[in-house]
Order: sequence, then C-alpha cells, then structure tokens
Amino acid sequence: MMSKPFLYTILSPNLLHNYDINNSVVVIIDVFRATSTIVTALYNGAAKVIPVDAVDKCITIGMQTPNSITAGERDGKVIEGLQFGNSPAEYPRNFIEGKTLVLTTTNGTKLLHMALNNGASEIVTGSFPNLNAVCNFLQQQNKNVFLGCSAWKNRVNLEDTLFAGAVINQVKEYFTIHCDSSLMAEQMYKLHKNDLKAFARTTTHWHRLAKFGLEKDLEYCVTENVANILPIYKNECLIVE
Amino acid sequence: MMSKPFLYTILSPNLLHNYDINNSVVVIIDVFRATSTIVTALYNGAAKVIPVDAVDKCITIGMQTPNSITAGERDGKVIEGLQFGNSPAEYPRNFIEGKTLVLTTTNGTKLLHMALNNGASEIVTGSFPNLNAVCNFLQQQNKNVFLGCSAWKNRVNLEDTLFAGAVINQVKEYFTIHCDSSLMAEQMYKLHKNDLKAFARTTTHWHRLAKFGLEKDLEYCVTENVANILPIYKNECLIVE
Repeated sequence: MMSKPFLYTILSPNLLHNYDINNSVVVIIDVFRATSTIVTALYNGAAKVIPVDAVDKCITIGMQTPNSITAGERDGKVIEGLQFGNSPAEYPRNFIEGKTLVLTTTNGTKLLHMALNNGASEIVTGSFPNLNAVCNFLQQQNKNVFLGCSAWKNRVNLEDTLFAGAVINQVKEYFTIHCDSSLMAEQMYKLHKNDLKAFARTTTHWHRLAKFGLEKDLEYCVTENVANILPIYKNECLIVE
Repeated sequence: MMSKPFLYTILSPNLLHNYDINNSVVVIIDVFRATSTIVTALYNGAAKVIPVDAVDKCITIGMQTPNSITAGERDGKVIEGLQFGNSPAEYPRNFIEGKTLVLTTTNGTKLLHMALNNGASEIVTGSFPNLNAVCNFLQQQNKNVFLGCSAWKNRVNLEDTLFAGAVINQVKEYFTIHCDSSLMAEQMYKLHKNDLKAFARTTTHWHRLAKFGLEKDLEYCVTENVANILPIYKNECLIVE
C-alpha cells in the first residue's frame, strides 16, 4: 500500500519557513477578503487575476496590460492610485467578464509569493466560496499539501483557520496528518460549521472591516460553494484551467 | 472607568515579534515538559532554576554553582554531558530540595530569553500544575499580558494552546481581548477541559514522547493545580517569591 501524502496547516506566513513545501501543493487562504474576491472575479468571467505584492507594481502592470483594472486594499481601504478595492461585490459578471484584474492585498498576495519562492509545485487559492473545488483538487494530486493561512499582519486569524478546518474535514482520509494546527482547525470548524456567519462576527477582523460597512461582504465570504471553481497560479497569473 | 489591560496569546516564538511586549507580563508556556518540570522542582523545594539556552552554558554554569545539578533534553532525550532530563518525576523533594537546577530545553528556555530581550517587565512560567497561581498573579498586575506558547520547533502545538485557553477561561473578565488566537485557545480548552488527559493523547507531541515511555509524565503535565506556586524570573533565575 502506498503511504498517504502529508497535510499541514500553516497558521501565519511567519511560520512557513518551518516546513519543507518543496514540490507540494500550497493552498493560499485569505478569507477576508483576497481569495474570496479572486475566485469571485474568475467565476464571473475575469480572464485572469495578476496578484502583486506592491502598489507601484500594481499600477505599472495595470498600465502595461490591455483591458485590465487595478485593485487593492491596505487595512481594509482602497489604495490611492488604484481603481477598485478588495470586495467580491465589486466584480459582477457585467463588469469583470473578459478583463484582467491586477490585485494587491495586505496579506494574501504576500503569502502567495512566499510559497512560490519556496518551491511549491502548485499554488491554488481557497476560500469558502470555492471549498469543494479546492477539496476535489487536493484529493486528485497525491502530493503533500500545505494549507497556508494569510493571517492578519502575521497574527493568526480565525476565518482562515476555519477554512483550513473545512478543507481538512472533507479530505482528511486521503492524507497523513501529524499537525496540531490541523487538528485544532478542524475542531474549530466542526464546532462552528452550522453557525459560521454568527461565529465570524466574533473575529477581530470582522470588527475591523465592519467599521467600513462591509457586513454583507463578510457574510458572502463565509458562504460555501457559491463560486465553485479553482484559481491556479500559472505564468504569474491566477487562472481557471 | 479605567480601561482594562490587553491580553494576547502568541502561538509560536516565531510570532512574538508581531507584538509589543514592552512593560508587559509574559507567561512562558511549555506544557510538555519544561514549565511543568520547573514548577515541580520549585514546588518540591529547589532553591532556584536557572534556565539557559545552550548546552555548553548549562555545563559551565553547573560547574560554577554550588549544590547544583544540570539537566536538559533535546527531542525528548537527556543531553550528553548533562546529569538529568526534563521530567517532573525526576525532581521529588528528597532529591531536589535546596538544590539549584540548571536547565536547558528545546523550546521553553529559548522563548524566555526572547521575552527578556524584547522588554517584558515580568516573566513567569505557566503549566497546568500551577494554573491557578498564574491566574491569580495576572489578575493582580493590571498590566498587558502575553501568553507565550513555546510550541515545538516553532510549530504551533495543542498542549500549550490549551493551557493558554485555561488561563483565558479564568481571567478574561479582567482583560480586553481582541485576539483570535485567544478566542481559539479558550474554545479548545472549553471543548476538552473534562477530557484533557484523553485529548492530550491526540497531540503530535504526545506521540513523539510516548515512544520514550513517558505517558505518566505527560498525564501529570495536564493535571491542574498539583504544584500551585508561581515561578518568576529575577536576576537570571526562576524563583518563588
């Protein structure tokens, strides 16, 4: 019998270097709101999403890319010099279809580039709107998996941990899991899977963003399988294959 | 009304730099087994414990200190060149009373020195055997508190997180807590407080140490208030005031 591949949960980008992610699948998780926005834009027909880790790069690539829009947030607000923010609601089909979204965010984009620089062989993005698509992909790869939580300025957050738990809850029989973070994430998800929206309101990030009137956005971001496709990173872009 | 001081939980030494611990109380947590051993040795009459972060330093200080013993483990085993290991059971009163324990451990001692170098004003050690002593101290200080989990080679572990949750469960009314790690830790503790011994068996560290026949040790390390004193760091030593 073949041994099962390993699965680990990494609760903050600061912890990534403790793991050997070489030749593994890394799932980038940034529930509030980067990976929820990315999957929604692609689900609604965006040609691709270009994730960048700095604002000036975002502006430059935006100018060089036909039919593109630039977007990003720092601390929950649209960045000066960019056109749009980091809300899934900003990207309905009648606006985003066929366009390229050049996106920079506080936490998620940075983690993606860290994973890339550390040798991940496949990078995909995960969030509640594409939970099942992520799980189906992981089951088919037969590779080690790292669930990478983007966290908030490197501080562990609940919403990313809960999503890691949701994935583990579905795929655990396919993996060897010797990882306390994974055990904790799954237990937290099982404890709250029937009240995700209510529980999300207790997170520190909710309080931070709710100040800006984003409650509907946040509720969308904890709704499972409403944009069920898989963004995968190829040639510096997130696309749907 | 005075605002309450803050309380944060830091799940790994790798995350410490994301917080301003200056002039705060830091609780060093290393449930399996450094802080359980430290409190047990002091409870049983040890004059003091000198925590050191390197083996050669442990040997040198041991030679310079009258009536001392050197102890330490790496990866759960006694280190060559040292006399004893990192098991609470090695330090009964008829052996340790009046002696100085010079101790180096994989994770806990390193975190203590990090806290010291980052400006903590009080450093105490916490573990289930001295849960109430820690909580009583924190309630009286009126200072910001950081619950510092030693983790396992910087990977988040369950047993330290559970102890942080046990503390939060007792003291939360005295603090302002905007910290998802704290919320998660308390929920995990509440979920398992009535089956701590059974649940501890599911942690990765238990499996690591149980190989060495340490089950009784580990059960002791999750028993609340059986060595209920407060080790506090003064002049490079942990003592009981």
